[in-house]
This record gives sequence, structure tokens and C-alpha cells, in this order.
Amino acid sequence: MYHVDLNSDLGESFGNYTIGMDSEILKYVTSANVACGYHAGDPVVMEKTVRLAKENGTAVGAHPGFPDLMGFGRRQMVVTPEEAKAYMKYQIGALLAFTGSCGIPMQHVKPHGAFYNMAAKDPKLARAMAEAVYEIDKNIIFMGLAGSEMIKQAEEIGLKTASEVFADRAYNDDGTLVSRKLPGAVIHDKDLAISRTVRMVKEGKVTSVNGVDIPIKADSICVHGDNPSALEFVKNIRETLEKEGVEVRNLG
Amino acid sequence: MYHVDLNSDLGESFGNYTIGMDSEILKYVTSANVACGYHAGDPVVMEKTVRLAKENGTAVGAHPGFPDLMGFGRRQMVVTPEEAKAYMKYQIGALLAFTGSCGIPMQHVKPHGAFYNMAAKDPKLARAMAEAVYEIDKNIIFMGLAGSEMIKQAEEIGLKTASEVFADRAYNDDGTLVSRKLPGAVIHDKDLAISRTVRMVKEGKVTSVNGVDIPIKADSICVHGDNPSALEFVKNIRETLEKEGVEVRNLG
Amino acid sequence: MYHVDLNSDLGESFGNYTIGMDSEILKYVTSANVACGYHAGDPVVMEKTVRLAKENGTAVGAHPGFPDLMGFGRRQMVVTPEEAKAYMKYQIGALLAFTGSCGIPMQHVKPHGAFYNMAAKDPKLARAMAEAVYEIDKNIIFMGLAGSEMIKQAEEIGLKTASEVFADRAYNDDGTLVSRKLPGAVIHDKDLAISRTVRMVKEGKVTSVNGVDIPIKADSICVHGDNPSALEFVKNIRETLEKEGVEVRNLG
Amino acid sequence: MYHVDLNSDLGESFGNYTIGMDSEILKYVTSANVACGYHAGDPVVMEKTVRLAKENGTAVGAHPGFPDLMGFGRRQMVVTPEEAKAYMKYQIGALLAFTGSCGIPMQHVKPHGAFYNMAAKDPKLARAMAEAVYEIDKNIIFMGLAGSEMIKQAEEIGLKTASEVFADRAYNDDGTLVSRKLPGAVIHDKDLAISRTVRMVKEGKVTSVNGVDIPIKADSICVHGDNPSALEFVKNIRETLEKEGVEVRNLG
Repeated sequence: MYHVDLNSDLGESFGNYTIGMDSEILKYVTSANVACGYHAGDPVVMEKTVRLAKENGTAVGAHPGFPDLMGFGRRQMVVTPEEAKAYMKYQIGALLAFTGSCGIPMQHVKPHGAFYNMAAKDPKLARAMAEAVYEIDKNIIFMGLAGSEMIKQAEEIGLKTASEVFADRAYNDDGTLVSRKLPGAVIHDKDLAISRTVRMVKEGKVTSVNGVDIPIKADSICVHGDNPSALEFVKNIRETLEKEGVEVRNLG
Repeated sequence: MYHVDLNSDLGESFGNYTIGMDSEILKYVTSANVACGYHAGDPVVMEKTVRLAKENGTAVGAHPGFPDLMGFGRRQMVVTPEEAKAYMKYQIGALLAFTGSCGIPMQHVKPHGAFYNMAAKDPKLARAMAEAVYEIDKNIIFMGLAGSEMIKQAEEIGLKTASEVFADRAYNDDGTLVSRKLPGAVIHDKDLAISRTVRMVKEGKVTSVNGVDIPIKADSICVHGDNPSALEFVKNIRETLEKEGVEVRNLG
Repeated sequence: MYHVDLNSDLGESFGNYTIGMDSEILKYVTSANVACGYHAGDPVVMEKTVRLAKENGTAVGAHPGFPDLMGFGRRQMVVTPEEAKAYMKYQIGALLAFTGSCGIPMQHVKPHGAFYNMAAKDPKLARAMAEAVYEIDKNIIFMGLAGSEMIKQAEEIGLKTASEVFADRAYNDDGTLVSRKLPGAVIHDKDLAISRTVRMVKEGKVTSVNGVDIPIKADSICVHGDNPSALEFVKNIRETLEKEGVEVRNLG
Repeated sequence: MYHVDLNSDLGESFGNYTIGMDSEILKYVTSANVACGYHAGDPVVMEKTVRLAKENGTAVGAHPGFPDLMGFGRRQMVVTPEEAKAYMKYQIGALLAFTGSCGIPMQHVKPHGAFYNMAAKDPKLARAMAEAVYEIDKNIIFMGLAGSEMIKQAEEIGLKTASEVFADRAYNDDGTLVSRKLPGAVIHDKDLAISRTVRMVKEGKVTSVNGVDIPIKADSICVHGDNPSALEFVKNIRETLEKEGVEVRNLG
């Protein structure tokens, strides 16, 4: 039987600023990536988000990012592997205090934004990140872009991994994502996005931007919940997956 | 046989900014309070400090403070107990990632600066802080001002405590510290400071600013290591304690 | 002929976080208090907000706050007058770069949140703030709580002032605001709030929480624009004022 | 007669953290680049530094950097030209509040660290930065790497410029600096560094890392004052320049 995880970024509010529809999206996803105070989130938000995820039975993971709240962690910063590793540990540890005191385990770690994108391509950065997770708790799953350096480096050191795919993004022939700066990077046809996702899960294949069928591993699908239309899409993708015989469940 | 702990604040450097003589002071103290990134410290500094403490066989504790780097956590901030609890968990968790991955336990938690001073007097704040520690790991010792609300609240919820005394500070008749704004708050005569400390440890008494002998519990003595003269004082206090038959050892 | 200013806090978005209905509220208010990056706002937001205010013909003022983004500047911080003065200059200067390069003057400065509330009662803090404005440009108007230390201290050093009143807040007999912690602090009856405001402007009087008529100077009325209902209230108050023969205009 | 400016980065302390020997170096340099709170510096430090520079008769300039205190502004951040422009305005404006209220003009603006290095090569970033200065006050001089995009873009929009050279850095044949990652990037022979500098000022030439004589414009020489040995070097370079008939004066 097929199965796949649905993950979404949550807990991105900060102080007086609220974003995301966390309580809604939690009904449909199986894994929550919780911001850890560097690119978004604060301790009070983290506490609430972990509690909310627990109530919904959603598995919790850390979502560490660059120390750039003003840029929401979406801007590349040239940090050393030593810095990256320490930033990972700091943020993962901070979230562990909330999951631990709430009585739930940390299922996974998925880096955020530019931290994720840089690590997908940079073996040293990816290795440093994977080591951070491993040294804290080797039972935590490292979630990264399917086929990327993140997965490769994590596997090399014996860390469990979850390969992430994107429903609405186009892929190059080598399995990397088509840059958002290029036309066709985002798939706006929702039905197509869903059918591609089903195929990634069931066949392990996706059609690249050049029309080539390429292999892809889909342990988890990234979805968004920051607006009503995104939420609707998540419902649809979940329903279609289940109709197609794919069990939607967390990584545990 | 008598015994007492010597604790000092460490890991207060930040990025390009270095303060403290951490590698020196670690030779003389038995417990290190490591800054956790809010009022001082950053992940790279935390990693190094924990490693250095381990090498010196010094027990490690978290030193959480207000989110006020510009004020070094020394300015009162009116936060709610809920915020205080979440800030404690966040910072303690962050440091746990470094102690854990370094293979050493977290011995204690001692709040910093204005966070400490406010909690010493405010039962709700002290309770929230103690709960934060308890919910993360009830085996971690909560270090606070001897005789203060910190100790009282922590004991009420069943948390282990360590009563801290200050060698160079004058005490009021009720065991609180004389405000630094008042004359005589700081004891500049180093010999007097040391003999007072010995008496606190061996007799459980100290002479108040009004000349009254008051009871005081001295599990740990706070010392500083940010300049050569402070370092010299720590050596002296340690030597005198040992000469007086007081074993200097951590809280374990 | 009567006249009064309507002021509102704007430019409080930050990075990826958006709050406020700035483009809507700007149609109704005559003065915009623009956040300066400490409690809210960032340089990109400041640039846009100043431009938007200019397009709407709304006068612009600086809205400096405590360096506490996580608390939105609403938490008291015990800073020295020297620190307060420097924080004021820093933030006012930063906004002046945007007003200046946009070709509009800075009309006023109104401190934010806890910074405002503390200065209303603390003569030293109020004096330091007023001096900051004066030393930058003595033609900038200092807006503060009517009858408070802010107004008193600013007048003593020869700075122009604007006395601010609140439509929906109850007043004590001495002209201070009833604490939000007490019942009756906020006037929920919108018609009553509006009629009180008209009376403050036209008669210079308001009925205190104890039913006593007290004198009050109303140069500017503080209104909010962070939700549709608040916006509706602003429209109503403006229409009623104009119907009552009160010209709504900025402080110029 | 020959003349040149000596500039140094100052005001880089932050809160409880002190770095630099500002009061010493100010005796020897003619222009002070004052940090503006993003990569270093805080409002209280800015106030003191501007006052100190005024007392020493040293011209003051803004030294804006990336919003990365943890990295001291030395890490590349991929910001948009719009963000760069707004960050420049914010920081320059903030410092203008201190120079203005202290009664001295702002002579120049020199971006810091990675902000400087990226702008030296990126025409769009350099243009955005130059525009920020121009829109605030076109009489402020834009200081940048001699021969770089910073100088080129600033000149294109009609902004005054100051070409900066480095005494202890090797140059490529095209006038760019040899990367610090390469051997020979830094000239450790102090006498050679000084004689090269004198030649840059008097002849407008420097020998590249490949032994080729290349033209270079030297309006200002960057020197450091963060340790006693650096300070000694500054004294020597100044004395030698004066002995060689080069007047050391600011950019005015």
C-alpha cells in the first residue's frame, strides 16, 4: 500500500504579528514544521503551536532558519558550516523544550527557506546540518529536498531522512527545482499539480520541465496553509491521494 | 564536612564581541552559568563554552535572560508569567542541545540580571520560571537568591534548588540584597567579603547592613571573572574556603 | 472656528508580516504616526508608508518605541533618560531620511506604547524625549497625552506640543487615563465616545470616570485603523466632528 | 601639493560590549566611519562617538551595514536593491540625528563589510546605495573602493565620491582587491605597506600582485584602530606621509 506524509510550515507568527491559518491547516496535514524564533516564531508562539499540533495528532518537527526575521529567512546568508551547525542545534534544542514539556517527540527537522535551498546544493552546509541533528538525537528524521545534498549527506552519516517533493513546482532533468526566476517554475493548474503528486507517490516519477520522465522519491509533500485557497488545495490533494489508495500519514 | 559551589556567568561573548575571561575563570569555579542568546551569547559561543566547561570538569547550567541584548538583560522588562515561562523554556532548550550533543548533563538553571532580580521578588514570575524548568526536566536544579521567591516557589512545586549568596554584597535584615542605588550596597574590602562568605557557608549566618546577624543558606557563591582583579579574588576565596575546611564542589 | 487633528499609528508592518489597513485609514486621518523600526516597522515599510502618506496629503510624524519587537513596544522597559534620548534620536533620524528624501517635512513625534505611557508619568523620561526632538529640530511638534509630563516637559524647554486625547478611554479626575486593568477603562458605546470627543474639542471638557467634569486640551484625537470596525468608527467620528462645525486638519 | 584622507571604522561597540580604541585612533585619522546600529553600534554609542569625533576635529561619516549583528555585517546577504536603498537611508538618517544635534555635518557615507564588498562588484546594488545618499543629501560624499562599481555608479548620478585604498592589501591587475582566501592577499611587511601607500597617493600607481603597475586613485586610506599594533601602524603611516610632503586632511 502506498503512503505519504503531508507537511506544512506553521508557528510563523511573531509577537503581535499573526500569519498562517495554523488551526485550520492542522486538520489536514500529518507533519508540522514549527518555526524556531530565528526567521519567524517566538517562544510563546512555539508553545501554542506545539500544543495545537498535539491536540490535532499532527507530528511535530523543527523548522530552523537563518537569523533574519526582517527577511523571513528567505535571503541567502553566507554562513560557515560551523555557524550553520550551531544555528541548527540552537533552534532544534529550543523547540525540543516545548515538545518535551508537552509530552510529544520531535519527529523531524526541516530547514527553512534560503537555509534549505542553500543546503540542497552545498554538501558542506548540508553535512553540518545533518550532523547537528544527529548529534542531538539520531532518531530525529532529517527532511530535505528529494535527491538533494541534504538527503545524500544525511544518509552518509546514518541519519534517517524524508525526501520532500513539491506539488506545485516544476523540476529540472536532474531533479532540482526550476528556479522561481524562470517561467514555468510554478505549476498554477491545480489539477495538474495534484495528478503529478499522485504519480510521484505511486510511481516515483515526475515529468521534468523538459518533458522527460525522471525518478523522484516522495516521502512527504510540502503544502501551504497561509490563505483560504491554499487550504482548499490541501483538502483536495488529501482527498485525491486517499481516493487513489494512498494513505496519508506522518513519517513515524 | 562543609561544602559549597562557586558559580560564574560565562559564554557572554556575542559574534565579533568578546567579553569575560572564560578559559581562566573555569579553572576556579565549579559551576558555569552559560548565556543562552537572549541577553548575551550566540550559538557558536554556546557550543564553545559548553565544550570548554566540559574540558575543565565544570558543571554547566543555563543562564536565561530577557530578550534585550542592547541592555545585556540588565533592564527590567514587564513580561507576563506566560512569556517568562516560554522564554525560559526556549533558552534552556537551546542550551540543552549543546550540553546533550557534548555528552554532559545540564546541572542547573540560573536566571540572569533583571530577570533574576524581578523573579526574586515576584512570586508569579518565580513560579512561572520554576515551572519551566520542572516541565523540561525536574532533575535540573533551580539556582536563585537565597531566601527569595525563586527558592520558595521552586520548592513548592518540588524542584531542587540551590541558594545563591553574594560575597561582595550587603544584605538587609530580611535577607534581601541592599539595592545598588544605596550606599554600602557593595563590600569593597575583599578580606571582609571573603570572611563573610566563609561564615555564610560554615555558620549559615551573615551580618546585615544594620549589624544584625541573620540566617542565610549558602549552596553556591556567585563570583565574577571579567577582569584580572576579579579572577584574583576568586582564587583567594577558593583558597580561603579550602583552608577553612570547606570543600568547593559543584551541586551534583 | 473649532479644529482638531486625527492621528493614527501606521507603518507597523515588518518584513513578511503585515498589519493595519494603512491605505484605508490614510483617507480619514490628518496625521500619521509612522513606526521607526524598534517596536515595529522596517526601512522598506517606512519608505512605503511615507510615500503613501504623502499621496494622501496626510502629515507624517515619527512613532519611536522601545527596542522590543517581540513585545511590540508595549512592555515597560526600565531605560535611563540617556538611553531614551538616544533611542528617540536614532528613530526620528531614521524616519527623517525617508520624509526628507520624499520631499515632505516631519510634522510631529509621538512616542509609542509603553514608551509613551512611562513618559506620561515620568518627568525625567519625558524631558529626555523632548530634548531629543528639540535638539534635532525645534520645529517638530511633540505629541503627548493631554495634561501629562510629556506636554509639561516639552513646553518647559520651548518645544511645540500637541495634546492628545482618546475617544474611547475613560479619564480619572486628574486627567490621567483609567488603567486598562480597571473596569470601565474603555468606552465601548461608540456614540458616547464620539459625543465625548466632540465635547473635548469644543468645550475643552470631559466627564471623568467619577462623573466630574474636568478640563482637557484636545489638539489631536488618537484613532485606530487595524480592522474594518475601527475604520468605520474613524469615518463616523470625522463626519460627526465636521457636522458639529469642527474642522479636521493636521497640526500644521 | 599632495593630500590624502585617513579613515577608520569607529563606534562599533554595542551595549555592554566594547571594541576598538576609538579615543586613541581619533587622534590620527581625519575621517571616522561611524557604525549605525545594524552590524554594530547602538544609539548611545553613536551619540558618544559623534561627540568624541567632534572633540578631535575628525570628520564624521555613516558606516551602514547589513542587519546582521551576529555576523558583524561581514556575511553576504542577498538583499534586493530596494532593500539596500532603504537600509542605507535608515542608517544614514539615524546617524544624521546625532551629527545634526551635535552641530556637525555628515561628511561621507562608507558602506561596511559585506555590504561594501558586494556593492563594489554589483552595479545595481551600488546604484541603489548611491541613490540613497543622493536622495538624502547630494552634498554627502560616497566613499567606496577605488575603481569599483561604487565609485562608477555614484559618479553617474552626480554624487561626490572618495576613492578608498588599502595600505595592507594586494591588488589584482584590474584594480580589484586580491581575495583574502588567496595567498598574498594581505601585505604583512609594514614598511612595504607604507611605501606602497605613499606611491598610490603621490603617483596614482600601485604594483599589482602580478608585478604590473596599475593606476589607482587614492582619496582616502583605510586604517584600523582595534589594537595597539594597528594604532602604531597608523602613527607611522601618517608620519611618513607628512614627511613625504603629503598633507593628511579630511575630504572637505
